[in-house]
Amino acid sequence: MTAGELDRDHIQSLERGFAVLLAFDAERPNPTLAELATTTGLSRPAVRRILLTLQRLGYVEGGSGRWRLTPRVLSIGQHYSASNAMIEIAQPHLLALAEQTQESSSLAALDGSEAVYIARVPVRRIMSINVSIGTRVPAHATSMGRVLLAWAPPAEIDRVIAESGLRAYTERTVTDPAEFRRALHAVREQGWSIVAEELEAGLLSASAPVRDRSGTVVAALASSTSSGRSDTARLQEEVVPLLVRTAERISADLDHGGAGRSPGPVVLNGRDGFF
Amino acid sequence: MTAGELDRDHIQSLERGFAVLLAFDAERPNPTLAELATTTGLSRPAVRRILLTLQRLGYVEGGSGRWRLTPRVLSIGQHYSASNAMIEIAQPHLLALAEQTQESSSLAALDGSEAVYIARVPVRRIMSINVSIGTRVPAHATSMGRVLLAWAPPAEIDRVIAESGLRAYTERTVTDPAEFRRALHAVREQGWSIVAEELEAGLLSASAPVRDRSGTVVAALASSTSSGRSDTARLQEEVVPLLVRTAERISADLDHGGAGRSPGPVVLNGRDGFF
Repeated sequence: MTAGELDRDHIQSLERGFAVLLAFDAERPNPTLAELATTTGLSRPAVRRILLTLQRLGYVEGGSGRWRLTPRVLSIGQHYSASNAMIEIAQPHLLALAEQTQESSSLAALDGSEAVYIARVPVRRIMSINVSIGTRVPAHATSMGRVLLAWAPPAEIDRVIAESGLRAYTERTVTDPAEFRRALHAVREQGWSIVAEELEAGLLSASAPVRDRSGTVVAALASSTSSGRSDTARLQEEVVPLLVRTAERISADLDHGGAGRSPGPVVLNGRDGFF
Repeated sequence: MTAGELDRDHIQSLERGFAVLLAFDAERPNPTLAELATTTGLSRPAVRRILLTLQRLGYVEGGSGRWRLTPRVLSIGQHYSASNAMIEIAQPHLLALAEQTQESSSLAALDGSEAVYIARVPVRRIMSINVSIGTRVPAHATSMGRVLLAWAPPAEIDRVIAESGLRAYTERTVTDPAEFRRALHAVREQGWSIVAEELEAGLLSASAPVRDRSGTVVAALASSTSSGRSDTARLQEEVVPLLVRTAERISADLDHGGAGRSPGPVVLNGRDGFF
């Protein structure tokens, strides 16, 4: 076995481990080994070896032929949240925005051609999918994605257009590349985005950019509602100014807080700061 | 290389991959390769191979010698949340509890000797650590952990006592095994737990058990406050009845909802159900 082959082996078992973890979802919360093999395209012996490793590490548990994820898998994402100062900094602003609008507020980052929820204060459910931290939505069909792309380098916009194929989720999804680029241009000009019913019928959202100290857009702050509760004119009049102001405040706090932030000891003082 | 050695290799590279991911945290959000090697105890070439694999999978990004996690690592935990019907079912109840108490409400599960936050509606920050989904706290020193242990088999209680060593976090932490067992007995008798300042000075919390259809305690529902805003007498009088009732409602919904739950398609109807 050459070094190159060994290297490939290492890559492969890590890759396969994640593939098995990600094969657990809402449709298959308690899969059998055979189901996991089918879903991942791996052999049963390979899946079995991975499951036993993951079990030893505490990430899955088995019983009566079915497997499930343990809450330990949440640790991995928690390390992202803990290592990203912006998420802690944004939290009180998300809460204030949710209270003022009485709608869910979210913070999202771009990953590939998708927007990922990295922080969220849920108020009510308006999407068909159960949105939680880590939920991914197509960037091109959401206000969060438009904001994350509007100030991105042209090559990144090209990449997202190519990867997503600007797939239509509803009749209103912008699927024409030229029209999509014009929409991004408008976002850049006005400083915010409203997207209505391009991902789901009845779903409306508005977003504004959060910037780091260099001015780079690092996240989108979003407020979501439904066509039964609002419309684009009301969103623009009532929510957008609040959203832009809140995003600016998060950006300002990022500028100050990023460096001075201390993780703090575990045993402490019970101070009662506004979360 | 024998089959046994190959097997060991597979286990090892997966285990090492997770060790590298978990080496990113609030204290080391942007580590260098050398820092990651020190933290994990792995060689630099091994860390480098893992980082390149994780980068290819989209979980980390590098630049100017420093590495960071990408929001893609949140996907892994999101698969836990999505595959656990209880989390979706509990969400509106957590929100209602937070609104009624004006305090953060949480759902936690037991993992090893720790309680893990699996769902949460934050209202304000009362702990020194930034609590998010996946945050872990010692079970023995929290009301969530007491509830998760009170109805557990004796062997599990023994294990947690041994693993945690009933470590003292404040002067008030119960560290004597006999006293700890009496505390669990009291929780079992009364059906809820209040723990005051055993994890942090000034931190108070109350918890009640959530049960699956077999009656097994599968989670703890908690409400947290600070000594500046409440005390154990007020918690018991005002919050505990609400908490017990809410936990019973989640248990009842679990009993009905667990089977009939449908993940639903991505493109949908914009229904406006209370989240």
